[in-house]
Amino acid sequence: MKLIIGNKNYSSWSMRPWLAAKSAGMHFEEQIIWLRHPETSAMIKATSAAGKVPILIHGDIMVHESIAILEYLAEIAPQLWPEDRESRAHARAISAEIHAGFLPLRRNCPMNIKRRPKAIALDDETLASVERVVDLIIDCRTRFGGGGDFLFGAHFNNADAMWAPVVNRLHAYDIKVPAAVRRYMDAVMATPMWREWEAAALEETETIVDIDSV
Amino acid sequence: MKLIIGNKNYSSWSMRPWLAAKSAGMHFEEQIIWLRHPETSAMIKATSAAGKVPILIHGDIMVHESIAILEYLAEIAPQLWPEDRESRAHARAISAEIHAGFLPLRRNCPMNIKRRPKAIALDDETLASVERVVDLIIDCRTRFGGGGDFLFGAHFNNADAMWAPVVNRLHAYDIKVPAAVRRYMDAVMATPMWREWEAAALEETETIVDIDSV
Ligand SMILES: N[C@@H](CCC(=O)N[C@@H](CS)C(=O)NCC(=O)O)C(=O)O
Ligand SMILES: N[C@@H](CCC(=O)N[C@@H](CS)C(=O)NCC(=O)O)C(=O)O
Repeated sequence: MKLIIGNKNYSSWSMRPWLAAKSAGMHFEEQIIWLRHPETSAMIKATSAAGKVPILIHGDIMVHESIAILEYLAEIAPQLWPEDRESRAHARAISAEIHAGFLPLRRNCPMNIKRRPKAIALDDETLASVERVVDLIIDCRTRFGGGGDFLFGAHFNNADAMWAPVVNRLHAYDIKVPAAVRRYMDAVMATPMWREWEAAALEETETIVDIDSV
Repeated sequence: MKLIIGNKNYSSWSMRPWLAAKSAGMHFEEQIIWLRHPETSAMIKATSAAGKVPILIHGDIMVHESIAILEYLAEIAPQLWPEDRESRAHARAISAEIHAGFLPLRRNCPMNIKRRPKAIALDDETLASVERVVDLIIDCRTRFGGGGDFLFGAHFNNADAMWAPVVNRLHAYDIKVPAAVRRYMDAVMATPMWREWEAAALEETETIVDIDSV
């Protein structure tokens, strides 16, 4: 199994299947294609016509789109989705929600693992995104968390992976959140796979000035 | 089972699970919340804090987000995804791709079932979206279609449902496409569930001027 990803410091989409696969103890090779180089797009399109990373290669099978890769991984490691039907449906719903939504937060607070926490001014749209994020995390953990550290209890799963880049955004832009959300963020950031990804991101020398200058 | 949807004429997201559920012969109640009224958002939020339709209610379970609803339906009716692992992975990948992508096409050519086919000027970004759409449909049908009418062969499935609003966009804005894509569009538009949705859309008297004036 091989995962083709972008820069660990910046590629929020890449982080998701990488964390999920590691959390399930899967072994995979990794190939990084540095983003925002003149040849980036052509290099990605040599494997996937959609032209985006992450891409999973498993034998003859190529899967693009982070959420489709997570579904693929969950066919191999079913614990990546909750076992109970209602929890699983909710896990997929909130995964889909972050896959297509929260554009103001995603645009204005790009993932940046190296960034030391530092607040920026947030417009009303971004604040509305943050409000929904906070509600969603608290509501999910209240209804489905059963007192565990993660969204659906004691185990990190695909929904946590989908939301992981948001954890970085809340942290890196020092966004005020209730203590219950901070606890969840700290639990995600303390997982071995988060720490491994972070350590590798910190060692990258590639920079994207647009993002670093936010 | 109940599906809460928006206007059939305009709500591209609502169309997806509705078509998929009908294609699988499921019985469900339907509730329409008219979009763009002052009370629309509050009415939706009374059921789902995410504030968006479609919403599926099945007994005590509430599922939001079109693609999560499609996964839920496929747990009940597994034929909604292809049986073969590689085909299924690709079906999910292209479903995810339209869930979060093709913004220029989605923004500039909003779904409008009543619209009589009429071309508009398309900017370069929209034309690039259309080019990827065409490639994706032809590539999928070539690799996985096995000569059938739909993306993955003889049966309409979740991927066709995800792409159905694009079929309307290509048709309604009279966008030039290769004959192979037109044949696919005609097959989708000839299904009994498409015709049923279309007939209901044509009877709606609600209008959204912003969309009708494109
Ligand atoms: N919806 C896609 C989005 C993937 C995406 O946008 N990836 C970016 C990097 S984070 C990319 O590959 N960009 C291509 C480029 O920069 O040429 C997914 O879920 O995988
Ligand atoms: N990503 C969501 C998008 C749903 C969406 O944007 N729905 C629109 C109508 S098509 C909506 O409910 N808008 C709320 C409003 O107009 O207040 C999904 O896949 O279900």
